[in-house]
Amino acid sequence: MGIHVIAEFLGVNPEKISRVEKTREILDRVIAKSGLNAISSSFHQFEPHGVSAVYLLSESHLSVHTWPEHEYVALDIFTCGADEPALKAFELLVEEFQPKIIEKKIIRRDLYEKNRSSNTKGTCSL
Amino acid sequence: MGIHVIAEFLGVNPEKISRVEKTREILDRVIAKSGLNAISSSFHQFEPHGVSAVYLLSESHLSVHTWPEHEYVALDIFTCGADEPALKAFELLVEEFQPKIIEKKIIRRDLYEKNRSSNTKGTCSL
Repeated sequence: MGIHVIAEFLGVNPEKISRVEKTREILDRVIAKSGLNAISSSFHQFEPHGVSAVYLLSESHLSVHTWPEHEYVALDIFTCGADEPALKAFELLVEEFQPKIIEKKIIRRDLYEKNRSSNTKGTCSL
Repeated sequence: MGIHVIAEFLGVNPEKISRVEKTREILDRVIAKSGLNAISSSFHQFEPHGVSAVYLLSESHLSVHTWPEHEYVALDIFTCGADEPALKAFELLVEEFQPKIIEKKIIRRDLYEKNRSSNTKGTCSL
């Protein structure tokens, strides 16, 4: 039912990830281009720098936490439904943040499907 | 630097996870008891039932997505700093939701630490 892209970026330009305004601009663009549907978004500015951003999606959520002092971004894209928008959002995040090092894991969140006896396809609250 | 508890619950009483009001009450209680620090929270009510909830924490985030029709909850607790509050929150979520089946993964989010040459301990934006 669900795909969860868990990624870490290293070597990101701190100017892109220090202040909410700039990071939000980037993330809004990524969401718009990805095909994901944002319901709401919330942000927090850490001082002296660093951003947390979470987008509630009709497909689940996308979150970004930044540590500009380490040029580091931790991101999650968890979606139900088709995989493509989540994978597209990940590609767009790579293009935008241009990290020097990427670590990426993809986890399937399908416990309820594994535990069903029927063969009907899982639904997604969209 | 960070711990990420990724869990799925199956066999959860749908009454606890169908409407924002009830689920929020449970999650607010879990956050308060866990030692985690919520900065803000956002919720979405799916119709006819189902809840998405994301808490932005000073330690990162906690998210819950529910599919009451499958008695299913997907949850994430991602925190920087000490592991204990995240693990405590997970225990409290198990107590509250009383799932019949649990699948849990713990991921370390420590890419920047693995790529440093120094031995200094990672900082957390707290």
